Amino acid sequence: MMKAHVYVTLKPSVLDPQGQTIHNALRKIGFGQVEGVRQGKFFTLNLADGLSPADAGAQVERIAREVLTNPVIEEFTYQIEG
Amino acid sequence: MMKAHVYVTLKPSVLDPQGQTIHNALRKIGFGQVEGVRQGKFFTLNLADGLSPADAGAQVERIAREVLTNPVIEEFTYQIEG
Repeated sequence: MMKAHVYVTLKPSVLDPQGQTIHNALRKIGFGQVEGVRQGKFFTLNLADGLSPADAGAQVERIAREVLTNPVIEEFTYQIEG
Repeated sequence: MMKAHVYVTLKPSVLDPQGQTIHNALRKIGFGQVEGVRQGKFFTLNLADGLSPADAGAQVERIAREVLTNPVIEEFTYQIEG
């Protein structure tokens, strides 16, 4: 089965309080060699087998841009497998 | 700078209502060739430069297991870069 992986991250200019909280917690429990944490989301899409790689790429790009990402504060990357 | 990427997913046996909702929405707006959606989280950790690859791997594995993942319902993978 063809799969697409879409990774959505906050833009570098956007504060990430969840990542900051995890970073603080890691320092407190002794993981001082971690210098920063950012949290993101990812989505695994199972795609119909008949889809050509070009069509799959075009559809996944549209889904990522129009449905999975808030373009004001987030950006995305994706890869297609299989 | 050395970076670690940790990917946390729900175990395959655990229902994913967020992924299901996105899947339903995609079908309604015409992306019928998407046959399933699962949502996960990922974390990017910046690691201190002095860390050896072996120490980095050991620390990231512990962080993923003990802090970032709920072992009852989630599982993780990670990779270290640079």
